[in-house]
Formats: sequence, C-alpha cells, structure tokens
Amino acid sequence: MSREVVPHRDGHVYEFGPEMEAAYEAADGESLTIETIDSLNGAIQSDDDLLDAIPEEVNAATGPIAVEGASPGDVLAVEIEAVRVAEDVGRVLTAPGFGLLQDDPDIDHPATRITEVFADGGDRSGGGRIEFEGIELPIDPVIGTIGVATAGETISTLTPDDHGGNLDTTDMTAGTTAYFPVFQEGAMLAMGDAKAAMADGEMCGTGAEIGTEIDVTLSVIEEPEVALDRPLVDTGDAVKTIASAETMEEAVELANSDVVRLLAHEHGFSRTEAYLFSSLVGGLEISQVVDPQVTARNAVPSEYLSVPF
Amino acid sequence: MSREVVPHRDGHVYEFGPEMEAAYEAADGESLTIETIDSLNGAIQSDDDLLDAIPEEVNAATGPIAVEGASPGDVLAVEIEAVRVAEDVGRVLTAPGFGLLQDDPDIDHPATRITEVFADGGDRSGGGRIEFEGIELPIDPVIGTIGVATAGETISTLTPDDHGGNLDTTDMTAGTTAYFPVFQEGAMLAMGDAKAAMADGEMCGTGAEIGTEIDVTLSVIEEPEVALDRPLVDTGDAVKTIASAETMEEAVELANSDVVRLLAHEHGFSRTEAYLFSSLVGGLEISQVVDPQVTARNAVPSEYLSVPF
Repeated sequence: MSREVVPHRDGHVYEFGPEMEAAYEAADGESLTIETIDSLNGAIQSDDDLLDAIPEEVNAATGPIAVEGASPGDVLAVEIEAVRVAEDVGRVLTAPGFGLLQDDPDIDHPATRITEVFADGGDRSGGGRIEFEGIELPIDPVIGTIGVATAGETISTLTPDDHGGNLDTTDMTAGTTAYFPVFQEGAMLAMGDAKAAMADGEMCGTGAEIGTEIDVTLSVIEEPEVALDRPLVDTGDAVKTIASAETMEEAVELANSDVVRLLAHEHGFSRTEAYLFSSLVGGLEISQVVDPQVTARNAVPSEYLSVPF
Repeated sequence: MSREVVPHRDGHVYEFGPEMEAAYEAADGESLTIETIDSLNGAIQSDDDLLDAIPEEVNAATGPIAVEGASPGDVLAVEIEAVRVAEDVGRVLTAPGFGLLQDDPDIDHPATRITEVFADGGDRSGGGRIEFEGIELPIDPVIGTIGVATAGETISTLTPDDHGGNLDTTDMTAGTTAYFPVFQEGAMLAMGDAKAAMADGEMCGTGAEIGTEIDVTLSVIEEPEVALDRPLVDTGDAVKTIASAETMEEAVELANSDVVRLLAHEHGFSRTEAYLFSSLVGGLEISQVVDPQVTARNAVPSEYLSVPF
C-alpha cells in the first residue's frame, strides 16, 4: 500500500470533541505520513518574538483521520515509525502565567530562545542536533499532542485527558506504538505540537517546538481482551499507562490502577498481588506538569508486561 | 584505612533531629560498612504476618555517624560503593491507610508477600534474584532512608525532607554519590530501610524490604561553591536534585528550581536561560508518592551538568 501524505493544510483541529469531521479516511492497516506545524503556528521565528499570553489556538493537530472499521469500544493502535523535524529552527519559550516556575521573580516571562537545527548529512530524520546558547543537543523528537475524538466533552488541544490530546509525553516518538480507546466511529486521530527535544515535565511550558513529518501505521483492534480507558504506549522496552488529571496525585493513582489491571490480566494475579508487584519494578514517571491537567505514566519493563491486544 | 563496620546494634534512630548523639565517629574520607535491618524490624517473616497499622517506629536508620570536620554550611558526600542484601527473604506489603491505592476496594489492606532471595554463586552482593509469586526479578537494592541531622525540626524516619530521611529514591544505590547539606556539627549520617527492589513511586508503600550491608566512603566538602539546600545525587549518568514536599506539584517546583541554579552556575546562564534549558533535557522523576511528604527528582544528563563540589 503506498504511503499517502496528510498535510496540515488539508485539515487541523484545536479541539478534540465527540463529533469531528474527517480530513482523511484511512484503511485499517494503512501507513501514512502526517505533516505537523509547530505549536505556535509559526508566530515565533526569532529570540525577539515573545509570547505575551498563550494564544486561544495552540497545538494545531493535523487531521482528524478516520480509520475504517474503528468503532466505540475498539482500540486504535498507532505505530510511530519516524518523526522527522521539518524546519531549520525550533523554539523554546516562557509565557506569563504558564510553566512550573511562573512565579520565580528572576525568570523572565515572556522569553524566547531559537534552537537552530543542524542536520547531519543533510538528513533531519535522525542523528541531527539542535543548539541552545552554544550547547548542542541531539534531536530526540516528541509528538506533544496526539489523540482521538472524545466520549462526550469538547477539549482544547492545550489539555490532555482520557482521549489523549496534549499528553506531552517523551515516549511519543519513533519506535513506540501508542494505543488509544476508540470513543467514536472512525476513532478520528489527530496529532501535532511536536518538539525536537523535550524534558520529562516540560517545565518551562515548551520543548523545542517544531514542525515535523510523522510516519505512522494505523490499525484497529476489535473487541480488546482488556478494556482500555486511557492511552497506553509500548516503547519496545516497557509498557506504560498514561493518565491525566488535575493533580499529580490523581494522575499517578489512575496510571497505577491501570497497570494493576494489566498485570493482573497478564499473570493471573489477584488485584492485591498485581499492586504489590507494581511496587517492585519500573514505576511512576512524569510526562508534564504545566498543562491545564498534568500527565503521569506507570512503566513496567517489557519482560513483565505485554500489551494485551 | 581499614574499613570499620557500623552494626545496627551499636546505634540506630527513628528520628532525625538537630541534636543527635554519634554512634560512630568517622574520619573525613573514611570508608565504612553500615549494617541495616529491614524497615519493619523483622516483624514480617511469612505471608501470614500482616501489618494492621504502620508501627510508631519504622525505618530504623543505623547511626548516626559523626564525620570529622563537617560543619554547618558544608556538604557531606556519601559515595555508595555497594549495597548487599543480608537476608534470605524480603517482604512487600500493604497496610491499612497507607499506599497509593489504599481506597481500592479490591485490594487487601493488609497483605504480605515474602520475596525469597536467590543468591547466584552464593554471593548476595550482585547478580542475585528475588522471587514474587513465581516471577524472578533481579536484585536492584535501594537505600530507602538516608539523611543527616536537621536544621531544627525533629522528623520521623517515615518522612523525607531537606535533610534526606525517607527519600525512597531508587538512585540511592551502588555507583551513586549522594550529597547532603550539613546542618549540624559532624553531619550525623544515618541510613536504613533498604529494599532488594523497588519501583519508582513505591506505590503499595513498600519495596522488597530487607536487611543490608552498605559500603560507603564519607567526605566533607568545605565551603561549597554553590549552596546545597536539599539532597543531590550523581549516578554517573546524571546529576539529580531531590526534593520532598506535601504535594508533588511543590516537590517538582523545588527540584526544578534547584536544577536551574546548578545549570546557571555550570554554563554561566541567566536563570531564564537555565530554566529554558532544563525543559529540553532529562527531566522530572518520581521517587515516592506514599510517605507523609512525597519526593521528586529533576535529572540532568551528566554531559550537561556536573556536581559543583
């Protein structure tokens, strides 16, 4: 099957809701390249471009893509094959009222630094670097916003929730397969808000925001053995539940509860045994602490947990 | 210098306070072996031994050890050379009113599982395994409680704070050098509450609790270039600030603020630049979410940050 390209100009959203109109209709099992623009729609191109407030429309998510046969109760598998940066610069920045240290009097809000891209061998698909104030960092791309149509609510692309959305999770990168619950016909996948690099936590509110080309293969899992309430990723090394909530305490409770369910299914454990086991291997991780809801993960090494579908 | 052994029976504490009486006096640069018993003082020896409540005295910390020349404002460096399990069993357990999923109706509180130790080649210093319900896990020891005399408060060994204490941090293991602020003459180091294995988060409230022998070398850093307010670890791969607070949001704010200070010192960055940079590499990690205060880390890979003393 040839790989079609879904460009940003063909369709993008700033909200995930229950009713979304498809920008592209994909076959079950189809491989696509999805083009995304940076989270701030190109508004920041130099260190002098400052963000006085978070715009109403951020994190444009290319799509949505309807996947043939996906129905409520199914699971959508998104195999992420490559994330290539598609610009010569990224940008990392603060904005007033946003970010973990927004009240620190010695930190400027707003502030911007452009991160120039150095593509090794003229190829930005891997091995490239970005520069921050004379320090070179490897490009390690992250898809910041990725999700599907919601069960009912309409949720801005600034906010993560059970449908995915602004998860800002470093595991959303090449080599990972991400699983989402299907709440609506066609699933309606959309993604954007990529970064050339990002720390777990995304403390200042951004990574190195950048446009990308993302290669994915989309598959529908019908009648999954274990119900999926929230996003899940398989990084190859670990299976990780992902949960978003108003507080980190609530988010880690959801992420751990989901892991306990998966471990019980995998090993035939009681829920008590699965909980005890979860306290011995892998553990809780932070995705981001800066969005309207925060996001946490519970990782279990692949030798102890596989994806049940 | 010969390596002295500091056994649990020679002295142990259930509180860190401003005034502590030394169980051992170490020279600056001295190497020691510190023996610790399990966090529950041996009360749990079979699956039928249940913990109906958290005892008043838990996490017995062997010591305190006065280090010659350590004075308030100095930094105590604890090079952790080895952590050997010293029992044939560990124990992982729940107790009522304790743990992340303490309100889950399908999880038993209390519940206990003994984790048998299999020492490869008769040596429990490395390469061994523990067993949980037929699943073998590698021994990957963690020193749960480690800290120094406090600036003023008296703090139970159940609670982590700026002096260290019940940090339950998986990086507290062989190969790591831990740094603590010195608040009182002699620093007064004590440690215990080790686990044969523990997940980041310590969700059920325990790892595989076990007695250990810990090899350390203790050094005093006088007049550090950068003030140290809270524990810091150098794992060899990364430098990580460690902060404890009532909420995870407060803990990560402290941990990130400390990293920003270190990055600014290392690279000559403004505080704004250091904050932006912190949002690109490494990131926030969870130590534990179950103690009276929670504990978080901010990790920066060693190529971008060194310990400033």
